[in-house]
Amino acid sequence: MASPELVELATQFVTHYYTQFDADRKTLVGLYRDASVMTFQEQPSAGAAAIGQKLEQLPFQKVVHKFTPPDVQPTSNGGVLIAVLGQLVVDDGETPLNFSQIFILAKDQAGSWYVQNDIFKLVVF
Amino acid sequence: MASPELVELATQFVTHYYTQFDADRKTLVGLYRDASVMTFQEQPSAGAAAIGQKLEQLPFQKVVHKFTPPDVQPTSNGGVLIAVLGQLVVDDGETPLNFSQIFILAKDQAGSWYVQNDIFKLVVF
Repeated sequence: MASPELVELATQFVTHYYTQFDADRKTLVGLYRDASVMTFQEQPSAGAAAIGQKLEQLPFQKVVHKFTPPDVQPTSNGGVLIAVLGQLVVDDGETPLNFSQIFILAKDQAGSWYVQNDIFKLVVF
Repeated sequence: MASPELVELATQFVTHYYTQFDADRKTLVGLYRDASVMTFQEQPSAGAAAIGQKLEQLPFQKVVHKFTPPDVQPTSNGGVLIAVLGQLVVDDGETPLNFSQIFILAKDQAGSWYVQNDIFKLVVF
């Protein structure tokens, strides 16, 4: 299963991701590459540029994410599967929304971790 | 993004998985291999035998899963990432529980799809 190092990596990544998302989500584009894919509320984006644009254009000004410790597993080709459950509040709303987000991190040719796969969905029934 | 064929594969898999889970969860072991890993409510299991045992020994007699159409993405090495949000009812309880489950399907040497990664968690805050 996930080594302590992998759990530490995932925890650091998730903390960084949501801190950046809430502070200045334009900067998130740097976490993606041309091969990255994102499904945000069932809407697909492919490639860092399109993903960055999608995130930047989300229709809210302010967001605050809270998240529980992620579940972490190694993938079969050296990546890291990360599953997050959390709550977010948009534009100072009163009711937090539950969300699920899944990342697969991979290493680029320079040896830096990036987001290869990203699936975000609000938990609504 | 995910081709129609991949979405169809994922939909068939998920439908099969929960149908088998609800009918006779002992049979689910056949969907895993020695390299498979599962994190069920934060508890790790590795290998088909351990995963099958874990699923079989879950402390309920009857369960009914309902699920929404899964999000599907190709992974970087030919696998399929599947994200499911759903609700389940255990032992004829009155309150459905929200759950998130993530699968990565991979092909074994015989060309059959199996579950390489599995993360299940109830959505509770």
